[in-house]
Amino acid sequence: MSTFGKLYRVTTYGESHCKSVGCIVDGCPPGLTLTNEDIQVQLSRRRPGQSDITTPRSEFDTVQVQSGTEHGVTLGTPIGMLVQNKDQRPHDYTETDLYPRPSHADYTYLAKYGVKASSGGGRASARETIGRVAAGAIAEKYLKEAYGVEIVAFVGSVGPVALPFSQEDDEVLGKEYLDLVKNVTREEVDKEITRCPERVTSAKMEEAIRAAKARNDSLGGTVTCVIRNCPLGLGEPCFDKLEAVLAHAMLSIPSTKGFEFGSGFRGTTFPGSQHNDPFTSDHGKGENRLRTTTNWSGGVQGGISNGEDIYFRVAFKPPATISQEQSTAQYDGRDGVLATRGRHDPCVVPRAVPIVETMAAIVVMDLVLQQNARAHAASLLAPVTSLPPTMVFPGQRK
Amino acid sequence: MSTFGKLYRVTTYGESHCKSVGCIVDGCPPGLTLTNEDIQVQLSRRRPGQSDITTPRSEFDTVQVQSGTEHGVTLGTPIGMLVQNKDQRPHDYTETDLYPRPSHADYTYLAKYGVKASSGGGRASARETIGRVAAGAIAEKYLKEAYGVEIVAFVGSVGPVALPFSQEDDEVLGKEYLDLVKNVTREEVDKEITRCPERVTSAKMEEAIRAAKARNDSLGGTVTCVIRNCPLGLGEPCFDKLEAVLAHAMLSIPSTKGFEFGSGFRGTTFPGSQHNDPFTSDHGKGENRLRTTTNWSGGVQGGISNGEDIYFRVAFKPPATISQEQSTAQYDGRDGVLATRGRHDPCVVPRAVPIVETMAAIVVMDLVLQQNARAHAASLLAPVTSLPPTMVFPGQRK
Amino acid sequence: MSTFGKLYRVTTYGESHCKSVGCIVDGCPPGLTLTNEDIQVQLSRRRPGQSDITTPRSEFDTVQVQSGTEHGVTLGTPIGMLVQNKDQRPHDYTETDLYPRPSHADYTYLAKYGVKASSGGGRASARETIGRVAAGAIAEKYLKEAYGVEIVAFVGSVGPVALPFSQEDDEVLGKEYLDLVKNVTREEVDKEITRCPERVTSAKMEEAIRAAKARNDSLGGTVTCVIRNCPLGLGEPCFDKLEAVLAHAMLSIPSTKGFEFGSGFRGTTFPGSQHNDPFTSDHGKGENRLRTTTNWSGGVQGGISNGEDIYFRVAFKPPATISQEQSTAQYDGRDGVLATRGRHDPCVVPRAVPIVETMAAIVVMDLVLQQNARAHAASLLAPVTSLPPTMVFPGQRK
Amino acid sequence: MSTFGKLYRVTTYGESHCKSVGCIVDGCPPGLTLTNEDIQVQLSRRRPGQSDITTPRSEFDTVQVQSGTEHGVTLGTPIGMLVQNKDQRPHDYTETDLYPRPSHADYTYLAKYGVKASSGGGRASARETIGRVAAGAIAEKYLKEAYGVEIVAFVGSVGPVALPFSQEDDEVLGKEYLDLVKNVTREEVDKEITRCPERVTSAKMEEAIRAAKARNDSLGGTVTCVIRNCPLGLGEPCFDKLEAVLAHAMLSIPSTKGFEFGSGFRGTTFPGSQHNDPFTSDHGKGENRLRTTTNWSGGVQGGISNGEDIYFRVAFKPPATISQEQSTAQYDGRDGVLATRGRHDPCVVPRAVPIVETMAAIVVMDLVLQQNARAHAASLLAPVTSLPPTMVFPGQRK
Repeated sequence: MSTFGKLYRVTTYGESHCKSVGCIVDGCPPGLTLTNEDIQVQLSRRRPGQSDITTPRSEFDTVQVQSGTEHGVTLGTPIGMLVQNKDQRPHDYTETDLYPRPSHADYTYLAKYGVKASSGGGRASARETIGRVAAGAIAEKYLKEAYGVEIVAFVGSVGPVALPFSQEDDEVLGKEYLDLVKNVTREEVDKEITRCPERVTSAKMEEAIRAAKARNDSLGGTVTCVIRNCPLGLGEPCFDKLEAVLAHAMLSIPSTKGFEFGSGFRGTTFPGSQHNDPFTSDHGKGENRLRTTTNWSGGVQGGISNGEDIYFRVAFKPPATISQEQSTAQYDGRDGVLATRGRHDPCVVPRAVPIVETMAAIVVMDLVLQQNARAHAASLLAPVTSLPPTMVFPGQRK
Repeated sequence: MSTFGKLYRVTTYGESHCKSVGCIVDGCPPGLTLTNEDIQVQLSRRRPGQSDITTPRSEFDTVQVQSGTEHGVTLGTPIGMLVQNKDQRPHDYTETDLYPRPSHADYTYLAKYGVKASSGGGRASARETIGRVAAGAIAEKYLKEAYGVEIVAFVGSVGPVALPFSQEDDEVLGKEYLDLVKNVTREEVDKEITRCPERVTSAKMEEAIRAAKARNDSLGGTVTCVIRNCPLGLGEPCFDKLEAVLAHAMLSIPSTKGFEFGSGFRGTTFPGSQHNDPFTSDHGKGENRLRTTTNWSGGVQGGISNGEDIYFRVAFKPPATISQEQSTAQYDGRDGVLATRGRHDPCVVPRAVPIVETMAAIVVMDLVLQQNARAHAASLLAPVTSLPPTMVFPGQRK
Repeated sequence: MSTFGKLYRVTTYGESHCKSVGCIVDGCPPGLTLTNEDIQVQLSRRRPGQSDITTPRSEFDTVQVQSGTEHGVTLGTPIGMLVQNKDQRPHDYTETDLYPRPSHADYTYLAKYGVKASSGGGRASARETIGRVAAGAIAEKYLKEAYGVEIVAFVGSVGPVALPFSQEDDEVLGKEYLDLVKNVTREEVDKEITRCPERVTSAKMEEAIRAAKARNDSLGGTVTCVIRNCPLGLGEPCFDKLEAVLAHAMLSIPSTKGFEFGSGFRGTTFPGSQHNDPFTSDHGKGENRLRTTTNWSGGVQGGISNGEDIYFRVAFKPPATISQEQSTAQYDGRDGVLATRGRHDPCVVPRAVPIVETMAAIVVMDLVLQQNARAHAASLLAPVTSLPPTMVFPGQRK
Repeated sequence: MSTFGKLYRVTTYGESHCKSVGCIVDGCPPGLTLTNEDIQVQLSRRRPGQSDITTPRSEFDTVQVQSGTEHGVTLGTPIGMLVQNKDQRPHDYTETDLYPRPSHADYTYLAKYGVKASSGGGRASARETIGRVAAGAIAEKYLKEAYGVEIVAFVGSVGPVALPFSQEDDEVLGKEYLDLVKNVTREEVDKEITRCPERVTSAKMEEAIRAAKARNDSLGGTVTCVIRNCPLGLGEPCFDKLEAVLAHAMLSIPSTKGFEFGSGFRGTTFPGSQHNDPFTSDHGKGENRLRTTTNWSGGVQGGISNGEDIYFRVAFKPPATISQEQSTAQYDGRDGVLATRGRHDPCVVPRAVPIVETMAAIVVMDLVLQQNARAHAASLLAPVTSLPPTMVFPGQRK
């Protein structure tokens, strides 16, 4: 339904032409300093009209916080937020309304609910994501302050144009790709309007998007995301493994088609002897924990974070709304030709970057709280003495 | 945690060396005829020791239904089920216990909980999946009886050996691959011990698995699954889209690394004009609904099933447990060489087939119940008269 | 937390001095005609300043629907609603802020969250209930249209002044009380400003409230509520019995201290032979179901509605905020005397009536949807033939 | 449904004549020492046949732990537990099966599910409570070890025989009653077979039960429960207030009719000036927190525990199964006379004592974990400096 998360709970509302879109964030820790700007920054990265390769519709998408903070500090109570829709009129009827748009949600919404919004796919509208982004921006703020978590996403491919180094060699993933995962910053990502931080590839992507736009077509692509400094021990076996909840979050973003983490699909072609990540102690860092020398696991083993970088890739299909003529059927079954007018996003992938980041933040935040609950409860018990030493975490109980 | 589903709720327990593993299924519709054999069939397809390419450990994994049925009919009350563990002794201490196995869950379980099972990764054990499979077998039975739903999974690749026709051409997916998706049966799948229904490829896979086994190594692979005759209208926007819940379910299976549905990652490289699925009426079938001429959407549009085949692919990594020597660290940080003894599954993908099928069944079942709740509620209201005709489903209200 | 319900889900936000209070209703059936007035009617019955015996603060509490409807019809998507707070300034600091108000939530909120709203008890403010009432008014509308459900609550006691006939005789409950339960209408309830529909008692209550107000004191009381025409079969064993969910809902209303249904606490003093409700067929009504001749069960047996009137009673304590001087401690532990200024509700019970009704509606609505899910699923199965006839509901399967 | 709790989750299965009844406890903190005896002690206090005033059916109800512990220590993974049913045969058909038992669950179960267990009310059987008691016994163990929580329940009335001092005077509750609440121990409670710790009243209750048994009748009663040393700050506003979740838990116990906490229903008749609990510092105890001089709040203010004793009362109806002849209708609507044979519990209240205690423990445990999650998260943030001092808890942040 419209709620995500168990302890950090995000509930959203709103579609294209209603008064506003928004959300309620329940479970935000109290005592977090939080300004509108903390939230606005990701909303602005998500909004349409940022460059000439995205949809020209210009909405400012300014967040209005309704509750849950006072004097710039969170109270621990629900944070209500909303963003006005500029165009609140119900959609005017046109001949195109006789057609469910191919690969869009018009038909399935109508079939599911029996009625549908005049604008078509209702909650499948990209405006639905505003609530998530606002909620995720708060989670990011907390995670950064409490743990130094960094979440950075970037565009890895647009249509057939991909980062050249992502899958070459006889390695699972290319070294330069892993370097990006390890080091790329949001600032570097935002330097390119494609949000692909490799300049040459970015230029090719831009060209591809402009070409698609020129022929009234659309392009998909992939987004790579990394979560750095994620606390050790997150993920709730067995159904709420970290990767399972991440996959759920990512596939709930409109237009997504796939998710893979760490070595992903390509990793399935390598034998265990090359795929396993050996452990090593990390004396240099002075921490009482193990690290791994490689990270094909993508920071997750057995559904639980191991403290290494968590990285994953999300596939986005080409947007269904194109202005080319399409031979298709009307709702009543009559064949015809649909020519959608208006100007649409030829490629949503650059704008998907903050959506992927903020959904990742919501997932980590929720799992942090769940693990906090357990860890704090366990810390109140007397030390375990009856177990063999290898069954007890060294230094777990002080 | 250990519960999956909202209205069809599966809660599991158990790890490697405890007394039993099992589950409670809550929310099964009353009045379903259900025998032990209905459940056993998938447990037997999952169990170890089925062929010489899987682990030789022989456990019969016989289900014992505890409650929820009488005279072979479900009562609508919770169905308790368990399977005895043959080997219930706590694991004997050996020198290998000083090492967290690389890419296994030993380390993360210990870090998360502070204590761990003597057998290592606790609930990350493959035996945990027994409860899911039992629960999913019941869901499959219901879905088949009520809707004629067919769920069939098969192995599409093992290590580097893949179905040759899956991604060639300038098409998103190969024609022969789509034919398999459309028509393959469980009987055909089970003819091959690899569960790859294409004989020539299967032989190559077998060879690859035997070679890996011989060098004490392991192989990953992919499983493709199709859900046929899935009712129209399933999936709960915006966070519980059908594909999001499926992805959650699949990535909760041990050893999985990725999920894609319909055109998946490869679909991102094609433009919208080729990727969109045009609608067509389906007069031949005499049904009052639209079909699509292609199905790159994978049966889901806007997060809601459109009545076409739902198909997806799941990536499984090579098993972490291998008998080769591995240079790695002990829990206490000292470097060393781990040589795991014992005989392990060189490739889990064939046994993953029923796990993927049953998890898919649980997802569909849960979404069917959620949609039933809405549809039945809406059917009790007076017909809507104030909406423009294109906003109301034709023939929705009788 | 701030969400109630499983399929009809209400999430609220807001406290006393923030911008607005509101809620998101997720899971409302599509196709329900719904105007602002349908929602406003209960908000207006709840709002302060309705009569001279309630708080004189005058807020109009006008609902603003943000999403989820078009052309006056629900779309099945989340309904966002909000009500502006007239006084949005953070509370000015006064000397009384040094004191946690006795029996109020100031101290516990501060202890729980570490920080608190300047206005004190944060979400314990009565303004929090606005979201519930709005959400419940929609549930009431649906239940009335689909099933003819009537929910009516009234005040049964104010301080020591109670309906004289509620517990006399050697009967469990008085005949006149049961008559009220069976027949009283909202119109009759609203004729009295106390919302006690018995005129003589109401006059005494009014007098008691005025006297309490005059001496800067406050009074509690009880509200009785009845749900008529509730569908048979609601309630989800074993933890979500109808009465358990109702109790949860009622005790979540601020200032409540108790809940009893049917014969309640007094029923415990009667033997089973007098307390049991014999069954009788109901040929006169032409329905294929059994009725009971008495209804000490309060419409619920085994946690499941039996089709009779569901009735229950809720206890409300006297409001904690009084203007008398109170000897108490400051936050820092120093003793002192607190004299709260301002004008407060001397008795909240009359205004609690719509809150009780709407929370009851939310409970029934949620359980209706859960039972719909099961009943519709079961109806798709072939008739059960292998069970003895007394194990199958007559006429269950057509 | 059959799951209770959010982070400490209890899922139960089983009815009267199936193979076993049991539960899965998910979310138990790791590192807790736990033996079978820790669980058995409450199961044995619950089991039938403890004295000649309970049902003579003798079942030993021995718990079998299936998973989740090793070497007597919890692993943090789900704890599966079961108790064999001694009589596992489906119920034999008799003429009484033509009748739904008045005020029992036979009719409503049949109406809800369309089919029913041969034994009648299915999950409404008292054997369903075995799973809860086992799960709650574990929660009690944790709460005692971590916080020194004590939970004690006792019988306050049986039919018309009540503790003489519970509601006299012009006080809200009698002094001797409050003394019991403050000091009574389980040992004192178990000295009397009625579990009423006041000897004279207990003797009268015994007499009343024997008399009811002799005339084939049954008696209800009330159970009072106190939770001592409950941590400050538990309860999740606004819907999951501590008292709301407690009420939910208590009303989910079979045969319950009402719940009140603190001053309860009687408290509604007193004015605020007498009902408010003034604060006082607690310098003697050397704790940095406030106490209250009276405790009509029952340890909860604004839905959050204030650190005082939490106490409440639960009403149990007289058991519906009596051996007297009852004029009632058969399922098919024909009138007749039902004479249930067999020997039944004339009064379940003494056996309800451990059920009330363990359900209370489950509630507190779940809320402790939720509050742990928040408190630990907040503790990682920098101290709040921008709020006025009265908005910040003294000493909250070190």
